[in-house]
Amino acid sequence: MYRSHHCGELRITDTNKEVILAGWVQKSRDKGFMIWVDLRDRYGITQLIFDEVRTDDTIMQQARSLGREFVIQIKGTVIERESKNTNIPTGEIEVLVNELTVLNQSQVPPFTMEDETDGGEDLRMKYRYLDIRRNPVKNSLLFRHKVTQEVRNYLSNLDFCEVETPYLIKSTPEGARDFVVPSRMNPGQFYALPQSPQTFKQLLMVGGLDKYFQIVKCFRDEDLRADRQPEFTQIDCEMSFIEQEDILHIFEGLTRHLLKTTHGVDIAQFPRMTYDEAMRRYGNDKPDIRFGMEFGELNVVAQHKEFTVFNNAELVVGIAVPDAASYTRKQIDALIDWVKRPQVGALGMVYCKCELDGTFKSSVDKFYDQADLAKWAEITDAKAGDLILVLSGPANKTRAQLSALRMELANRLGLRKPGEFAPLWVTDFPLLEWDEETGRHHAMHHPFTSPKKEDMHLLDTDPGKVRANAYDLVLNGNEIGGGSIRIHDAETQALMFKHLGFTREQAQEQFGFLMSAFQYGAPPHGGLAFGLDRLVAILGGQETIRDFIAFPKNNAGRDVMIDAPAVLDNAQLDELNLKIRSAL
Amino acid sequence: MYRSHHCGELRITDTNKEVILAGWVQKSRDKGFMIWVDLRDRYGITQLIFDEVRTDDTIMQQARSLGREFVIQIKGTVIERESKNTNIPTGEIEVLVNELTVLNQSQVPPFTMEDETDGGEDLRMKYRYLDIRRNPVKNSLLFRHKVTQEVRNYLSNLDFCEVETPYLIKSTPEGARDFVVPSRMNPGQFYALPQSPQTFKQLLMVGGLDKYFQIVKCFRDEDLRADRQPEFTQIDCEMSFIEQEDILHIFEGLTRHLLKTTHGVDIAQFPRMTYDEAMRRYGNDKPDIRFGMEFGELNVVAQHKEFTVFNNAELVVGIAVPDAASYTRKQIDALIDWVKRPQVGALGMVYCKCELDGTFKSSVDKFYDQADLAKWAEITDAKAGDLILVLSGPANKTRAQLSALRMELANRLGLRKPGEFAPLWVTDFPLLEWDEETGRHHAMHHPFTSPKKEDMHLLDTDPGKVRANAYDLVLNGNEIGGGSIRIHDAETQALMFKHLGFTREQAQEQFGFLMSAFQYGAPPHGGLAFGLDRLVAILGGQETIRDFIAFPKNNAGRDVMIDAPAVLDNAQLDELNLKIRSAL
Repeated sequence: MYRSHHCGELRITDTNKEVILAGWVQKSRDKGFMIWVDLRDRYGITQLIFDEVRTDDTIMQQARSLGREFVIQIKGTVIERESKNTNIPTGEIEVLVNELTVLNQSQVPPFTMEDETDGGEDLRMKYRYLDIRRNPVKNSLLFRHKVTQEVRNYLSNLDFCEVETPYLIKSTPEGARDFVVPSRMNPGQFYALPQSPQTFKQLLMVGGLDKYFQIVKCFRDEDLRADRQPEFTQIDCEMSFIEQEDILHIFEGLTRHLLKTTHGVDIAQFPRMTYDEAMRRYGNDKPDIRFGMEFGELNVVAQHKEFTVFNNAELVVGIAVPDAASYTRKQIDALIDWVKRPQVGALGMVYCKCELDGTFKSSVDKFYDQADLAKWAEITDAKAGDLILVLSGPANKTRAQLSALRMELANRLGLRKPGEFAPLWVTDFPLLEWDEETGRHHAMHHPFTSPKKEDMHLLDTDPGKVRANAYDLVLNGNEIGGGSIRIHDAETQALMFKHLGFTREQAQEQFGFLMSAFQYGAPPHGGLAFGLDRLVAILGGQETIRDFIAFPKNNAGRDVMIDAPAVLDNAQLDELNLKIRSAL
Repeated sequence: MYRSHHCGELRITDTNKEVILAGWVQKSRDKGFMIWVDLRDRYGITQLIFDEVRTDDTIMQQARSLGREFVIQIKGTVIERESKNTNIPTGEIEVLVNELTVLNQSQVPPFTMEDETDGGEDLRMKYRYLDIRRNPVKNSLLFRHKVTQEVRNYLSNLDFCEVETPYLIKSTPEGARDFVVPSRMNPGQFYALPQSPQTFKQLLMVGGLDKYFQIVKCFRDEDLRADRQPEFTQIDCEMSFIEQEDILHIFEGLTRHLLKTTHGVDIAQFPRMTYDEAMRRYGNDKPDIRFGMEFGELNVVAQHKEFTVFNNAELVVGIAVPDAASYTRKQIDALIDWVKRPQVGALGMVYCKCELDGTFKSSVDKFYDQADLAKWAEITDAKAGDLILVLSGPANKTRAQLSALRMELANRLGLRKPGEFAPLWVTDFPLLEWDEETGRHHAMHHPFTSPKKEDMHLLDTDPGKVRANAYDLVLNGNEIGGGSIRIHDAETQALMFKHLGFTREQAQEQFGFLMSAFQYGAPPHGGLAFGLDRLVAILGGQETIRDFIAFPKNNAGRDVMIDAPAVLDNAQLDELNLKIRSAL
């Protein structure tokens, strides 16, 4: 037996107990006649004490030779501390050591095992196994486990059945790029790793499983952006004999349960908003509604004067920044520069200060009088002391620009409070979106999403206007889940493929098994998938997912700890019937 | 709302309720004036009734047109059945239908959706989504879910933390073949899919996570044998600051819990046996101990006569087949033929009938008298009426042959009762095994297994004799789990790699990150992994794993439903910098 207790366990009530502990040397203080060692394990820190009077000489010597991160086992007696530490649960006691065994030594670690470490990102990733010893990472992993356990128990109690779908499947050129896996037994052929278990979960519904979920790794070979991982985890769900309302109800319940169990937060009913409304009010299909600054559309009160910039714009739209009328010219110029950055792309920005005395002062006073500006204030809901910022141009672009500005300002003003949770359902997404590059419509979610019955007649005439039975769950400005009611009859599915530009042969080739399954009594069904990495990060009050993944990859898709990917032996390539193409 | 109740829910107490049900038409019986339809969903079957008197004409017509596996929704009234069916929970009621909607039609399915289907294996796999509608498959998937939930809750309650380890890792030529994944972003380089999370779980221990588990897919590119899958699922576990005894204790507890919750079976303490003992008593390191027929070693009582076959053999060993003395000459010849099949490989077999009158009659009466044969009976524990079967030859081969015979006879005699569970720990496995092909020792488990301290001195002199701190959990003659205490210091690990024939460079190249991790305070640790597919199958009383996997692959590694693997577009290959080698 290596230990009788762990390092977070002993209390004042354990005084005089003989105990065995094991763990890592967090730090030691040597006062000559006394040595204190902080012994750490996953569960906490317990202070060990060695002193000239009560401790054997050889053990004193041993204690002096302990380095940081040495692994030791001790036997000793729990005693009351003279100076108590009320910051940690074990702070009232210490253990007087009478036996010490070094289980393993350690080199000096490349960074400190503290909450605020001196190790940079690269070093921490290379030595991730040491990084995990730090509380912020360790607690994130424990938190992730707690969340997945809650999810599994919640859904299981509702009769959802977790089913493992296969990882070695078939590549489909539609959508993002697949990772592929050469088959040695079928030379020249490849499996693909799933981007999601979408078709399999639909087949499980055809199979009558009724309520399915799975917490499952998915793979997407994309050019990585910050905070994207080539492998990521979904909570994937599907149900039969349901309508959209049933799904929203169940997964609102799940999310409410998670907020309650992780933060004690009670949220009665999640607000809902259509996609159109979200775009109009926030310029964004995943608005953060923890704060205001809603969009005010100013066309009717800003296009009646000589200001051609506005007059020529499809949309004139503004937000009221709270208590920002006092911004200096320099501060405002900096904001204008910010929206003109290529990442945002505005050509300019108009402002209007709502002074505390009730007057207005704008950058376009030449064109607009006080009565005009009062209307702007009314529409953007600006109060005395606020600053109205106005962008104009093509509707979609301008909305996206103003949305970016709104989020930036909210960050700067501290309006995105980590402890606050504002979930929101966004519904009625468009079925299709126009792709400039290929000159055709693409499925906004995926080709299995059901169009709204009442919009079906628009498929031929005005496909961009067709709404889908599709919905996203948004939390604090992040899409944490999304799903749809699926098409469940072969006829509608064939129609969809046609409108997405698939030939019958292509549809058959890629999704023949699904089309075929639909011939044998597919039930009405639909579902939803949560992005687990992000969900956990947001519930954990963080914006970045990396600390919630045990062994993440860097932005080049590399695991720098194990140094993967790597070249293969030629023998391995030969067995797989593959050759590396030499560079052109 | 598609339904007010599911199809397994209504009881006599629901009589007169207005209900809405949805599901599949299992079958219908048309008596002209009356039609009964069995409506099926995941939860059960409810009988619908339509009759000339009470049912609208158009609905009668509709009901007549329903085919098997049509998906329908009905409204109706729960009424008491005239002739009750006590075999199903809903058998006391039926639903008198007053509204019928066909939600989806179905072609005639390629096989019947019955427990005993007329569909062969190939057809069932091609239409797996229909196969899943059948109770045996559906219930297997639900059972698997129940088992995994129990595992997760049991381990979580013991402070185990489930951590997702990466799927895109690095290929290691040691051991079985890896599936590999070409990296587009790192041309010419490959990831590998994990054969197990072995090194990652050890790194989590170095990271101080203390108690880890994961239910995780693993991948092995082997030439498939029956009932092997290229992707399979493990319950993977690891603990720190533990000894072998702690691990056996915890996972015996888990297995006991599973036997209790799935079958109500209580098993107090699992028996244990060393590898050597298992080989001696059963010729097998995973003996089925639900029945006897233990090996009796006959060398001392069979090598003193003129029978050179025995006299020249390293081992003479027999078993007593209960109540088989009455076997005819033909039956015994058939058994002799069976052991002489190339799959078993014996050169011949000696038998001895223990007659009911206390005399013996053997095929070698020429050499052995009654007193000799009485000793055989004593050593093999044969009673009057039993048949002793004796093989001889090189020890290991002969044991394997007799073990195969023992299992075959147990199957024939019905001694392997599905409802009976006999777990067993097998301990003290050899550390190394000799590989004829490469002419060197291989790690029997894997290169991270810790040798027993007291055997370390044999590493140089007699490596085959070194025992490992390795153990298997055996259930009903199947290895369902196995693990070991790991090496946790760089020095011993380096020694192991040396004995396994790795150069320092190879060890560094392949396991450098682990060796490096061991420099920074690795704790003593060890673990175990269960094969989930097999565990679930055995707990489910089955010998084959296929029905417990939603979408299994066939013996050529193909998914015949989705037709994977498949060829890739040339564009995809180009992006990956790959070429297919033309056949030689």
